[in-house]
Amino acid sequence: MTIYQQILSIPTQGRGTYNITAKVDDSIHQSGIKTGLCHVFIHHTSASLIITENADPDVRRDLETILKRLAPDGDPSYRHTDEGIDDMSAHVRCMLTNTDVTIPVTRGQSALGTWQGLYLYEHRAGRFQRKLTITISGE
Amino acid sequence: MTIYQQILSIPTQGRGTYNITAKVDDSIHQSGIKTGLCHVFIHHTSASLIITENADPDVRRDLETILKRLAPDGDPSYRHTDEGIDDMSAHVRCMLTNTDVTIPVTRGQSALGTWQGLYLYEHRAGRFQRKLTITISGE
Amino acid sequence: MTIYQQILSIPTQGRGTYNITAKVDDSIHQSGIKTGLCHVFIHHTSASLIITENADPDVRRDLETILKRLAPDGDPSYRHTDEGIDDMSAHVRCMLTNTDVTIPVTRGQSALGTWQGLYLYEHRAGRFQRKLTITISGE
Repeated sequence: MTIYQQILSIPTQGRGTYNITAKVDDSIHQSGIKTGLCHVFIHHTSASLIITENADPDVRRDLETILKRLAPDGDPSYRHTDEGIDDMSAHVRCMLTNTDVTIPVTRGQSALGTWQGLYLYEHRAGRFQRKLTITISGE
Repeated sequence: MTIYQQILSIPTQGRGTYNITAKVDDSIHQSGIKTGLCHVFIHHTSASLIITENADPDVRRDLETILKRLAPDGDPSYRHTDEGIDDMSAHVRCMLTNTDVTIPVTRGQSALGTWQGLYLYEHRAGRFQRKLTITISGE
Repeated sequence: MTIYQQILSIPTQGRGTYNITAKVDDSIHQSGIKTGLCHVFIHHTSASLIITENADPDVRRDLETILKRLAPDGDPSYRHTDEGIDDMSAHVRCMLTNTDVTIPVTRGQSALGTWQGLYLYEHRAGRFQRKLTITISGE
């Protein structure tokens, strides 16, 4: 078994989902690993990762509707408000989604289901560079 | 270290939890790995994985009650409605639970706590065959 | 590649977050692994793990406010009520957060972002000893 690690930087332009499946598959190809696991980690507390349906964009719009309801922007109960109404809600949204995701590697690529895509979910309104570490292990 | 990968197909008959702990332990035994990690991945966006209490079935009934509240079936705000009232809610429920879970392997078996069980959570009303990839690494 | 496994026992004194980042880094140092992955698993269904902001304690107070709203203590709909009002809510809170977390290891330490900390989240009111298994793999 070998291990391969790579850092990615993903630019975001406001709240929403960014498909990073192809970028992660590029890392897998570069690793040369055929059978194993691909771990994706985001180094932030106001952007996260989700695997969801990759076909109808309304799915991601509806996920956003529900997240907004569960973790309201500018909720009157928040004490942590220094960076604006999308600051604390972003931390809640990260807690309810994922900071890390692991995907099987089979025949040299990510073994996602037909309808699955991997998305970076930016929860803040502004523009950011989001750092990811990809770690691939296997043979 | 070695790596072992196996595909499982789990039939589901409607929304609810299906205990897959024994099936995953079978994979671990077949791998021959004594110390390491067992990664379980579900290749779908409307069924997911949870680790929860394995004793009182009311626990899983109450989890269902809360998920139904957080991700209502047929919510009037949903735009993605093609496959019925349990379609979009299933995607939300997957986002709030897990597409992948990793469990330590110790002495050749899954090192779950006494009260922990691993469940496939089917979120759709219909019958499905759900595909899982199990990847075990260690020595 | 090598693999290293260690069990930790963390005492908790009531509901709240306990920073375990330094303890996990101790395990990484003991493993001697420089590049790889660190998997943290909690063997319980009423305490869980989160990665969140490590600076302003109000962030964790606000996360608690929202979790209390999403998974109310003593909700009248709960059937599983034997151990008190914080029993079933603890199981729901575990489902919405994480039983396991994997963090990249880079240059011999956990590669968390500047603002990220790893917390054990105790969801019960009482005092407990919580068991964790740390598994580190890499080279």
